[in-house]
Amino acid sequence: MGGTDTRNLTRQLADYVVGARLEDIPLDARKEARRALVNFMGCALGGSRHEAVDIALAALGPYAGAPTARVLGRAEQTDPLLASLLNGISSHVHDYDDTTPSNYIHPTSPVASALFAYASVHPVRGADLELAYALGYETVTRIGDATYPAHYDAGWHSTGSVGVFGAAVAIGKLLNLDAGRMVWAIGLAATQSAGLREMFGSMGKPFHPGRSAQSGYVAALLAQRGFTAGGHALEGPRGFAAVQSAAYDLAIVADGLGRQYHFHQNTYKPFPCGIVVHPTIDACIQLRRSHGIDARHIEAVRLRVAPLVRDLCDKQAISTGLEGKFSVYHAAAIGLVRGKAGLAEFTDETVNDPLVREVRQRVRAEADPGMSEDSVRVEVSMADGKTHSLMLEHSLGNLHRPLSDAQLEDKFRDQAGMLPATQVEALIEACWQLERIDDVRKLVALAVPRAG
Amino acid sequence: MGGTDTRNLTRQLADYVVGARLEDIPLDARKEARRALVNFMGCALGGSRHEAVDIALAALGPYAGAPTARVLGRAEQTDPLLASLLNGISSHVHDYDDTTPSNYIHPTSPVASALFAYASVHPVRGADLELAYALGYETVTRIGDATYPAHYDAGWHSTGSVGVFGAAVAIGKLLNLDAGRMVWAIGLAATQSAGLREMFGSMGKPFHPGRSAQSGYVAALLAQRGFTAGGHALEGPRGFAAVQSAAYDLAIVADGLGRQYHFHQNTYKPFPCGIVVHPTIDACIQLRRSHGIDARHIEAVRLRVAPLVRDLCDKQAISTGLEGKFSVYHAAAIGLVRGKAGLAEFTDETVNDPLVREVRQRVRAEADPGMSEDSVRVEVSMADGKTHSLMLEHSLGNLHRPLSDAQLEDKFRDQAGMLPATQVEALIEACWQLERIDDVRKLVALAVPRAG
Repeated sequence: MGGTDTRNLTRQLADYVVGARLEDIPLDARKEARRALVNFMGCALGGSRHEAVDIALAALGPYAGAPTARVLGRAEQTDPLLASLLNGISSHVHDYDDTTPSNYIHPTSPVASALFAYASVHPVRGADLELAYALGYETVTRIGDATYPAHYDAGWHSTGSVGVFGAAVAIGKLLNLDAGRMVWAIGLAATQSAGLREMFGSMGKPFHPGRSAQSGYVAALLAQRGFTAGGHALEGPRGFAAVQSAAYDLAIVADGLGRQYHFHQNTYKPFPCGIVVHPTIDACIQLRRSHGIDARHIEAVRLRVAPLVRDLCDKQAISTGLEGKFSVYHAAAIGLVRGKAGLAEFTDETVNDPLVREVRQRVRAEADPGMSEDSVRVEVSMADGKTHSLMLEHSLGNLHRPLSDAQLEDKFRDQAGMLPATQVEALIEACWQLERIDDVRKLVALAVPRAG
Repeated sequence: MGGTDTRNLTRQLADYVVGARLEDIPLDARKEARRALVNFMGCALGGSRHEAVDIALAALGPYAGAPTARVLGRAEQTDPLLASLLNGISSHVHDYDDTTPSNYIHPTSPVASALFAYASVHPVRGADLELAYALGYETVTRIGDATYPAHYDAGWHSTGSVGVFGAAVAIGKLLNLDAGRMVWAIGLAATQSAGLREMFGSMGKPFHPGRSAQSGYVAALLAQRGFTAGGHALEGPRGFAAVQSAAYDLAIVADGLGRQYHFHQNTYKPFPCGIVVHPTIDACIQLRRSHGIDARHIEAVRLRVAPLVRDLCDKQAISTGLEGKFSVYHAAAIGLVRGKAGLAEFTDETVNDPLVREVRQRVRAEADPGMSEDSVRVEVSMADGKTHSLMLEHSLGNLHRPLSDAQLEDKFRDQAGMLPATQVEALIEACWQLERIDDVRKLVALAVPRAG
């Protein structure tokens, strides 16, 4: 590793992206890329009616160009740059999109948001979009790994600040940029790299992947026409790594480029809420199913959790869906009452549902330093005197227990309520069959409400 | 200073911007604001035909919205967001715009580029634009001073990374945002703060004030509609200062807000080239004028300069205008041959002019650690045996010898060659009379070529 020459890293990365072919990427990586896109598309639909998307469209729509592009999940059309921004907001607004645990980046939103906007206005083969996405993903993951943890710990929301590189190379690939112009695209991405964690808890957070998708797209368009940039955007003394990360190992970007892919590092959230309460939800769903628990007869619920869970999610008296996302008590209640935890379980309505509230109030949580953040022990006492318990070691959705294809599909369906069921199934199938689609506009047409 | 409470600094700044009135700003500050705008407008015209502007318009124009806005110096119309970007590129592309020596920021380009784009599509009184500009300038200068030198030294091109705040508050002021929404506008500006010095020497550099103008404008539009952001974008633990500056004193942003203005810190370049060769040009122009020097009879030119001048500008054998901007030999030659140094003196044609080249080759430059960077000693030996010399202590254009209004006008005229002379004079007059203009669209109409 230490011997890797990174003095021309930006050019190395550009050369790789320009030369890459889909057939050079292993089939398992390509399969995982499609799983990430299935997950992305569902999240984009699930977030497409969020107020943040409405506001961004209302604020910026009046300045948009010819309405040739589609916005995932919405009837409105706009230009592809604004569509990139809106897709990015949609797909991240519920914090439900994919995560690479090695660097805490949500890698697909900034890349795919730009790609599907682009492919809604230009003829793009599915195989070419999959390749461009894979290159964007690799770029994000490698730069993210090379600068983690210093970059993230400093306060950068790397989904935005690193995501922009992925969008730029992905769109640059579809534009068929030569290596010199790909270097400029990377440079113009670097010099738009932004996104502060201070925005967490506001609409500024999902704005990050959106703006990064749009900025990366802009970078590629400018480079295509010959707008120049510095040639050492990543590795230069005033470049991205030196300026935006107190420590880094750029060899990680270069090593194994084109030979190793990092799709196995990606994870998909089963539940749209704080990740530290996922084990609790998972265990409660399992207990309910295994023992046919009727929540009306629950006497008490005792949780043993990692201390971090109580540090982050200890609020029991809650009244909003947003609070529910960060309450371990609500997590237990919905698992036991509903047996599921989709978007509907984190609405204000569900949080105020009498039975959910009743069970939530019967939950006690004990912090135990011996518990890992990925585990939980749950004990449920019933009115008839029976007690059911479960020790869960690894929560669904982490690297040890990835969501199955069927679970990804269920998650998708749960978020696609604005589309007819037959259209949803056709869209899911189109995502799986991406490599065989001759024009991605056919897929995108399934991802928007039909006129009439 | 140390006692200033900055825990709600973003809100303090927002309150100030929202409440500020033009009549509260001292007349000398308002006069200096207009001088800055005269200088800006000339630079925007001077750069408006640059290739970087052509490329950006060609690349992004196809995605622009309704062409309601004017681009300074150009016949094409576009939407105001893209016009902001283009104005920003134009006004900085020749490195000829204003500079605050306390933080090396070019403060007017990001702010005024957005404002004139906005005011080309909405009715804005000149007095309101002047106020919004003054608030944007103060915001940029204060945040720049508060984070200098750590922020700049780290590699940020603060004209972009700090400029975005000025654009956001200036547009936010014209949009009449309330304080809560102004806080969001500042937050959405912070989370788009970007721009790496690694781009210096490429079109990426003037892209920075352009993109900042556009991003600040976007921030204000989003905030207006209720797109939320974190409330502590400047001072929060993951906010701008903490993330993007290793050291800072945020009290500088707050202290004297609304009572002290910093327009006296601004300077205007007399020559469109590296600032360290300005004393040489200035001294050579003075010598030529004082002694009626005929450059055809120059035998030798000896310069005594600060060592930094030779470090940065020591190339004597040059062939391009860009190289000429950073050659102390070319600086002496044009001063002595042409008696001026406008845009025309830094073209490829002038650099290759036989007499300019001949004189350039007769220049010798000696580095003297005893010389300040603002001074020069020039000695010119003529063929008739006479010798003329000058010791210059302070170069024209610095804080000790600011350009006069007449010199600013000459600089303006030198850059406005694409407009008829009568129109240029009317535009200059309109800038001076800004406070009395009832609709800035009248001024903007003078800043573009007339149809037909």
